[in-house]
Formats: sequence, structure tokens, C-alpha cells
Amino acid sequence: MSNASSSSRRAFLATAAAGAAHVWIPRPLKGYSTAEVIAMTPVTPMGSGVSKWDLDTPALCVDLDKLDANIAKMQAALRRNKLDSRPHAKTHKCAAIAKLQMSAGAIGICAAKLSEAEAMVAQGVDKVCMTTGNLSPNKIRRAMQLRKQAKDFIQAVDYEPNAHDLSAAAKAAGVVADVVIDVAVGTRSGIPAGEGALALAKLVDRLPNLRLRGMLSYDGGAQHINTFATRKERTLKNIEENARTFEAMKKAGLNTEIFSGGGTGTYNVQHLVPGFTDVQVGSYVFMDMQYLAIGGEDGNAVYTDFAPSLTVLATVVNNRFPGRLTTDAGAKALTLNVPHAGVIGEPGMDYNAGSDEFGTITFKAASQTYQMGDRLELIVPHCDPVVNLYDYIYGIRKDRVEVVWPVTARGHSQ
Amino acid sequence: MSNASSSSRRAFLATAAAGAAHVWIPRPLKGYSTAEVIAMTPVTPMGSGVSKWDLDTPALCVDLDKLDANIAKMQAALRRNKLDSRPHAKTHKCAAIAKLQMSAGAIGICAAKLSEAEAMVAQGVDKVCMTTGNLSPNKIRRAMQLRKQAKDFIQAVDYEPNAHDLSAAAKAAGVVADVVIDVAVGTRSGIPAGEGALALAKLVDRLPNLRLRGMLSYDGGAQHINTFATRKERTLKNIEENARTFEAMKKAGLNTEIFSGGGTGTYNVQHLVPGFTDVQVGSYVFMDMQYLAIGGEDGNAVYTDFAPSLTVLATVVNNRFPGRLTTDAGAKALTLNVPHAGVIGEPGMDYNAGSDEFGTITFKAASQTYQMGDRLELIVPHCDPVVNLYDYIYGIRKDRVEVVWPVTARGHSQ
Repeated sequence: MSNASSSSRRAFLATAAAGAAHVWIPRPLKGYSTAEVIAMTPVTPMGSGVSKWDLDTPALCVDLDKLDANIAKMQAALRRNKLDSRPHAKTHKCAAIAKLQMSAGAIGICAAKLSEAEAMVAQGVDKVCMTTGNLSPNKIRRAMQLRKQAKDFIQAVDYEPNAHDLSAAAKAAGVVADVVIDVAVGTRSGIPAGEGALALAKLVDRLPNLRLRGMLSYDGGAQHINTFATRKERTLKNIEENARTFEAMKKAGLNTEIFSGGGTGTYNVQHLVPGFTDVQVGSYVFMDMQYLAIGGEDGNAVYTDFAPSLTVLATVVNNRFPGRLTTDAGAKALTLNVPHAGVIGEPGMDYNAGSDEFGTITFKAASQTYQMGDRLELIVPHCDPVVNLYDYIYGIRKDRVEVVWPVTARGHSQ
Repeated sequence: MSNASSSSRRAFLATAAAGAAHVWIPRPLKGYSTAEVIAMTPVTPMGSGVSKWDLDTPALCVDLDKLDANIAKMQAALRRNKLDSRPHAKTHKCAAIAKLQMSAGAIGICAAKLSEAEAMVAQGVDKVCMTTGNLSPNKIRRAMQLRKQAKDFIQAVDYEPNAHDLSAAAKAAGVVADVVIDVAVGTRSGIPAGEGALALAKLVDRLPNLRLRGMLSYDGGAQHINTFATRKERTLKNIEENARTFEAMKKAGLNTEIFSGGGTGTYNVQHLVPGFTDVQVGSYVFMDMQYLAIGGEDGNAVYTDFAPSLTVLATVVNNRFPGRLTTDAGAKALTLNVPHAGVIGEPGMDYNAGSDEFGTITFKAASQTYQMGDRLELIVPHCDPVVNLYDYIYGIRKDRVEVVWPVTARGHSQ
């Protein structure tokens, strides 16, 4: 166990003070160059016109009609409630989908990690709000470089010393950086609501090279609560103190143009929070088994507001044992999330992705007999980490590949 | 639910009969070119000489001294038992590590998926045994193209119609393809031991464009059984029928130069199987929390035969609540496997990676107080799927980056 932060921070501050706000420069490695890394990846996606049933599997697919409808429906629903959308790219990690969201009227996108934000900006999606903070000297430098490229890049802060570091780095980079205060809902991340959060907002407002834009309050834990009534009640209760802090910021004359949070599970609740401006909706573009299970405002046990557009195609590789099938899509293709993947058209099947390379299906009854090589289409357990496993998403219309989208920020967890 | 295999197979056979064994040719896409995909990935690894404590996190690291020692120890142990090693690349997906294994005396490597095998061959690791079959027309064509490039490429078959398809495709590609029969241990994949497996071996031997090389029998379920005595007993019992099938192949005058299987949990048991030739050891290079828990031949509850060389570095992003820390490494950095990641130096901490982007640590006692931005080093729950989440492995010697290795086949699950 080593603890390097204090010395690193001193080194960083020394560097920033000297005005040398360089980002880390790659030095020659014993490893490979980026060009060589690319050359070593011989997997080429299959192209437009191919039937989805002929794709090599496991294959990640999105039904474009459903995707388009989900984006349009969410945009319209939020507008009705006088809210904006600021969709979260942590779900799709895909610049092409972010662009569809922006075209539909989103005011920007969110990114969970710095490398995700960098990947989006590099593809021209430059209105990015990073919803977590950057603590290390190198990430702070990278964030300021990104701010130089993208004037609409906003970053979160939840810690006073970090605000000082950001301002120093912004000064060294010759920018004024846009900042939102991340105020906690629960205990995961963010500064607790109340006096401390207000003091942090005032500090950001005072610091010479930061520009306060408002406040984030994301209640991750509320998104998957079962039944709409319980979800609504908890969401509104959890955010009460945050809303009071937001009101106090407003009274203090601070800039409160942003009060952002919420997600696919609470998009139809957030307008009840006083002052709320925009919702960080993510999973609605794809849906998954987790969200299908949370129940809708209409009292339906299945959450049908948005259509499951994202699927994984798998191939049967063993059909020899009664009541049992093995497929080629295991944990490396579907993750270990629960509920298990749903086999489309086979409600009696349970799909266990517990092996790294293989899926194991057990069933008492199936709609047909399956042969070796047959394809199955699966609704994924939880869309965000599944997308993160794939280089490409096949965009499917009427069962044929229309487009292949790179998962721009795949693996960008830094 | 659609079932495309029958028509696809007919189309494939028609193509193969016409001698047009083309692989799939990419057509222009509405998506991005490979060059554009590369250009859109701005994450550059930090370089040699950097302290591991200054790496941007989450970062995947391997201690090179431990890695080297693990490879040497396994090679020596198998040689003592008159077995060869054929290490499984599904664990590391890294051509650089495969080359270290080959240099140490491995007779080849294994690959779980075709795209993994392709990635290894593209990097010059060309003695590859693919341990699962290729069923779809396109994958069979790709496998034969790979065979044309790499004369030492061996592929598994566990299904008679598939053997016919492989021979036809080999003929169309102008090659004789090397094949091993995959004989099941359990119900996951492979043809059951006994008459059917023997008949399949004879069929492969007869088919004009296939060359039988022997047999695989991998007991995935046995690798993680607790206590050496139980593991040994179950391994030897499970493989009895397979060993009889292997003996029958030998008596029938078939080529039995390969009888391969086993792994890190049973490397010191496989020599007791009559006729066994080589072990598909994988996790021993890295180790993980799962393997540390299985117990050793010495009776120790911790499996200490190999050193945990693989770690993930994470950063503390919230320390505000007593008995609780949040880090920046969640399920996208560590998977949901159990047992949970182990925090090095902090045996009293439980690390829950259940959130996509954040890790949650709970503890009653810690060796020190942790500040925002402090680093923690983690032993991963299960090495294979964690490595699959990263573009790079930092090779660390004496706490500094010595080399950066691309995870060559990262995401190659097809």
C-alpha cells in the first residue's frame, strides 16, 4: 500500500505555479505504437446489407427504428415537463448516438470519466458535462487541455482543495474552466448537501479561473427501485436537502443555470423538484432486463415507456442435453449482471452467462427445437457494461445491417 | 426468434462446392473506417519510467518479476511431470505474454474464440490451438483463411456435420486443416466421451481435407474446486471415460499425438491421466482472488503455487463517511465476479465493485487514513474477464512502468 497523493499534489502545484501546464507526453516504449496496436486488430465488422442472422456472434445490435423512437419519445416527454435532456454517454459510449441525441434537441451530453469525455470531444461531440471530478494532477492537466479544445466542457467538483487545484491548472492553461458542484444523494460521491456544498459553490465562484455553472445531484440508487410510486416518493425525498442547497445558492446570488440529475427511471419525476433544469437520461436509448423490471407509471409491472432496442446475438454450440443449451456468449459478452439476459421469443428459458466464454440455457419448454449453429437474440441484463465489451454496434433496420458504429469510448474507464 | 442456420449452411455448402472460398469483404459503411476508429481513441498509455502510483486510474498492471517467475515455475513443474504446456490465451489476450510463454518452452498456445486466434497469429504467435469449434459458414471460412496463414493452426470439432463442413471449406481453401476432437467433461461443450466421440475421430481421419491430431478434454468446472484432495479426486474421476476414449482412438490406429486439457487448478494432477500430453494453463500467469481461494497441495487454504502478479490501481474519490470509501474502479474496471477484489495491505476492507463506475469499500479497521486522491492497489476477482476490459497492461518492475503491452485480443469474443 502506498500513498502518493500528497507528494503528487505538491509536484502538481509546483508545476502549475511555474505555468508549465503540459499534459503527459508519451515517451518511446518497449511496447507498441498506436499504429501497431491498430494493425494488430484484424476483426473487421461485417457490412451493410448483411442479415443480422448471418452476423458472426456474439454480436451487439441496436434496432434503429426503436432507437429513434426512444430518443424522440424522451425528448418530447421532457419538453412537456419543461426540462432539457443532457443524455449520459456512459450508457452508449458511442459518438454516433450522442449526435442523434444532440440533433433531437439535447443541450449537451454527460460523461462519467475524463477519457470518455475526451473520446466524445475528439468526435465532435463537444458539449460535454463530466459528472465526476478529476483528482490527480495528470487528469486535471488533461481536463484543462480538453477545456482548451472544447469551450462547452463542464467539469464537476466536490472537494475544496480540488477546486483550488482546478483553478490553478486553468490559470496555467490560460482558460477559465466551467465547473458544477457535485452534491451527493446518498454516500457514493459528491459533497453532502447543506452548508459545505454552499461554501464550495461560493469558493468556485470566487476562484479566479473557474466559472460556476450550477449543481449536479444524481440519485443512482433511485433509478431501479420497483414500482413507480415508491420510486417517485424516494426520489423526491432524497433530493429535498439538495433542492434546499440549490435554493440557497440562488439566494446567495450564485449562478444556478444548471440543476441536473435523474435518469431513465425518474425522467417523469424530476420536474417535481424545484429548480431542476435537465435530466441525465442514459439507458432509455437501449433499455435492458434491469429497467424492464422496475414497473411503469401506468402500474404495469413491466416498464414499457421505452422499447428494448439493444440485443446480443448468440449461437447455439451444444444442444445434446435435454432441457439445456450452450451458446457462445458468456460473461465476456453479457457481464454477470442480473436479472439474466432474456431470450427473445422464449420466456421459459433461463440464460446464465456465468462462464467467461459460454452461456448456459436451461428450460422446461421451448418454442422450437434448436440445432447446433442456430442463433438466439438476447435482451441484455444491464446495457452500460455490456456495450463497454464491444468494439462495434451493428445498427439494424428491418433485420439488416444499415450502419456499423464504433463504440467510441469503449474501455475508457479512466 | 429466427433460425437462420439451415439456409445459411446450404448457402455455405453451395459456395464451398463452387470453390469460391472467399472471406467476407468489407463494403463501404455509413459508419467509420478503421483509420477513423483509431483516430477516435485519444487514450495514450503513460510511458516507461512513470511510477505506478502516478498512473491515471483505473490502471491494469502486471508485476514483471512475478510474471516471469510464474511462467518459469509452471514450465518447470510440467516438465518434471513429463507434460508440455499449451497456455490458454483467453486469460491474458496479450501477444507479448504469449511470446514469453513460447520462449519459456510452451509448445503452442490455446485460443477460445476465432477472433482471439486471428489476433494472436497477426502478431506472430502462430502455433495456436482453438479449443472451441467454428459453426457458422463465415467463421469456417475465416478459420480456413487463418489455416492458410498459419500452418500450425489447429481447430476443435465436436459435431459430425461440422467436420464435413470443415473438410469442404478446407478443400475450397486449398488446405488440409489440422483438427482435434473436443470431448466433453460435463455438459457445457464438446461431444460426450465414448462411441460417438470415437466415430467422430474416425470421420475426421477419413475426411480428405482434415488431419486428425488428437483430442481435447477441458474440465472447466474442476479448476476452482476447494481443497487439493477434492479437486484431484474429481478431476481424475471426471476424465476416466475420456481417457478410455483416447485409448480406443489409439487402438483404432488414429493419430493421438495430442491429449490436452486441464488448467491452473489441476496442473499438478493432469500427469496422472493416462496418455495426457499437455496442459492448457491460463490464470497461473496472473492469479486472482478466485484462484487464491482454492487451496494448495500443501494443505494451505491459500493457493500459493503462483504469485498474484496482476493488479488494478484505483483512486479514492470519497472519504467523507466513517468506515466507507468510494473509488473510481467499479464493474467496468473489475467485473462483478466474486470473491470481491482484495485491497493489498488492507485485509479488513471489503471492496464491492457493484456500481458501473465506482467501487465501494467498507471496513471496520484500516491501516491508515485515506485522503481524496489516494491510490489503492487491488488483486482482481477473476483475471480473464478483467483483462478483457483494458486496452493496455502496464508492465511494472520495482514499482515503475517498464513496458506497456496492448491487450491484443481485448474484446475478441467472436
